[in-house]
Amino acid sequence: MNVTINRRTQHYRTVWFNRTSNQVQLIEQRLLPHQFEIVATRDFRETARAITDMIVRGAPAIAATAAYGLAQGALAFRGRDLAKFTQHVARVQETLREARPTAVDPVNAMNQVRAEMEPGQTVEEQQALALAAAEQFAQESVDHCRAIGRHGAKLIRNGMKVLTHCNAGWLACVDVGTATAPIYAAQALGRKFHVFCDETRPRCQGSTLTAWELAQQGVSHQVLADNAAGHLMQRGEIDLVIVGSDRVLGRTGEIANKIGTYTKAVLAHRHGIPFYVAIPLSTIDWNLKRGFDIPIEERDENEVMGAWGVVQSAKGKGPGQKSGQRVFVRVGNPTSGARNPGFDVTPAELITGIITPLGIFKPKELWKRRQELAS
Amino acid sequence: MNVTINRRTQHYRTVWFNRTSNQVQLIEQRLLPHQFEIVATRDFRETARAITDMIVRGAPAIAATAAYGLAQGALAFRGRDLAKFTQHVARVQETLREARPTAVDPVNAMNQVRAEMEPGQTVEEQQALALAAAEQFAQESVDHCRAIGRHGAKLIRNGMKVLTHCNAGWLACVDVGTATAPIYAAQALGRKFHVFCDETRPRCQGSTLTAWELAQQGVSHQVLADNAAGHLMQRGEIDLVIVGSDRVLGRTGEIANKIGTYTKAVLAHRHGIPFYVAIPLSTIDWNLKRGFDIPIEERDENEVMGAWGVVQSAKGKGPGQKSGQRVFVRVGNPTSGARNPGFDVTPAELITGIITPLGIFKPKELWKRRQELAS
Repeated sequence: MNVTINRRTQHYRTVWFNRTSNQVQLIEQRLLPHQFEIVATRDFRETARAITDMIVRGAPAIAATAAYGLAQGALAFRGRDLAKFTQHVARVQETLREARPTAVDPVNAMNQVRAEMEPGQTVEEQQALALAAAEQFAQESVDHCRAIGRHGAKLIRNGMKVLTHCNAGWLACVDVGTATAPIYAAQALGRKFHVFCDETRPRCQGSTLTAWELAQQGVSHQVLADNAAGHLMQRGEIDLVIVGSDRVLGRTGEIANKIGTYTKAVLAHRHGIPFYVAIPLSTIDWNLKRGFDIPIEERDENEVMGAWGVVQSAKGKGPGQKSGQRVFVRVGNPTSGARNPGFDVTPAELITGIITPLGIFKPKELWKRRQELAS
Repeated sequence: MNVTINRRTQHYRTVWFNRTSNQVQLIEQRLLPHQFEIVATRDFRETARAITDMIVRGAPAIAATAAYGLAQGALAFRGRDLAKFTQHVARVQETLREARPTAVDPVNAMNQVRAEMEPGQTVEEQQALALAAAEQFAQESVDHCRAIGRHGAKLIRNGMKVLTHCNAGWLACVDVGTATAPIYAAQALGRKFHVFCDETRPRCQGSTLTAWELAQQGVSHQVLADNAAGHLMQRGEIDLVIVGSDRVLGRTGEIANKIGTYTKAVLAHRHGIPFYVAIPLSTIDWNLKRGFDIPIEERDENEVMGAWGVVQSAKGKGPGQKSGQRVFVRVGNPTSGARNPGFDVTPAELITGIITPLGIFKPKELWKRRQELAS
């Protein structure tokens, strides 16, 4: 049951490419933390399905997956007709775009790959450029996270207790993560600190993904029910909050992130605890004028009424109950429904700083420095 | 699977007494909301075990159970020797007290029953007085909840959306409930409103017990992940918060309640939403000088890392997975631990009012009116 992967001896990322077999390789995130499996997609259609089915999730991770998927599709083309090749690549791009139609990162990633292919004068040249561009995109994504880590590490001092919410770790990126980048960078500097991971109901990305990541990396940590951080803040047991974000408004400094983020920001503000948001620059939306207009997805109520897990014990002597099997259990009253907003919006006034690859900025500074940050 | 009990045709309470069989009858709360079962304890030792094993929980409910258990033990005595009878009753009381040693309500309830027995001059007379005292204690408990409802009902107007946390409903009392009393009273007045129940991780008393209760009573309601209320408050979708309490400090107006209550009070305060606490007078602690000194129980970390539920579906084709069976599933990373504080303390400044059987008071008013309230 215990998944222990030594990342020092087994090198892998959340998503990477196998040139020999022309396959995109992905960690099967739906099975974590109970099973560690690598999925290899045999063609771009399988890659698109892996995005749709949430084998891979997290904006930077699905962006890199789409970039690799586009290269994979381009490389699978047989023939020398550049016009037909271009038509084929457009179809590949469309299939991958439709895999998660509301996400903007995969679209930008694939546009970048296509722009890099342009100079190629033959199919073969364009294929080689596509792969190089996808690899470059993935590597830049890692570099951005490392830069976030360099800037954010100074916030984590010896003896601190750091709270994070949901998963903005390396499982959501190609590697390193965003909210986790300062944590891993501080660890590399030898600092001693402790991380609290909010469970993050209803999908529990904190207790499943973030806790698993931190355990793999040997970072001291504990999970908290989403109800508990307020009490710990009141007792002086939390010194710093770092979260990721799905969208940061460049004009206002508001941030959208997993449901419950706003609550933690309000609590941190009341207790004078610094609250930081770690993001790559691609997360900044320079157009939208107010956070209230960010569409908040209302998700399936069953997520709230139950949970996925592995059977530990059965009450009574029901026939055939096997331990170790992954199941969905209904927790709440079967005749009740739920409201399930997936995200919330935190206003700039509650945010101490935005940690980016280019440095840490006050939320209201983003717009003033848009020339530098939007380039 | 669907437990539907029509409380209008089937009259029962959370705890009651069967004189014919000398049994205490209890709703088996550990099986809710998936199964509805009545447990009848055959002697006071079984009654004590029902308290220890949490077949019954909630301060007013276990107080009444202990009162009935004492009468049950007294009634089981055979003989006419009043001295021996008194020794027996003391042993019964001790057994019931030890069933939940930190709770103060059962002790007070049993002391009340013993005081009422005193005037009896024979074993038979004292036995009859014991039962009458237990019945009176239970009935007074219901009357107090009804009075809370009468005072609190005025807070709930047509069209309102009311948030509650954990379970302070009739399942925690003999009947009616504390936080739910204003809800049921407003419903009886024909008002139309909607209730949001916080799931209340880690033990999920909101999505299991409160949602089940409200469904039985036909009250419009939905469950929320504990992360969601902040977002709904921000969007103007919550008008009122009512919670129960395990201990209210008469000197300061601070309240201790289920973990997460403080967070909801902070959010309500930020949004100018009234935050009320509903309690019987027995919940007021007139001695303790500051909320910081209320002992906060740190509970088993497994509660945070998993959940109890009924199997809905299994991933893959594992052998013998049965649907409909109650199991504990491990949700979080198996190699990670958790912090699990069970309660938190909310300061008076965040509380709009305390709803008691004698009326609604500002938290700071309690001490000024202690003559009236402590009698």
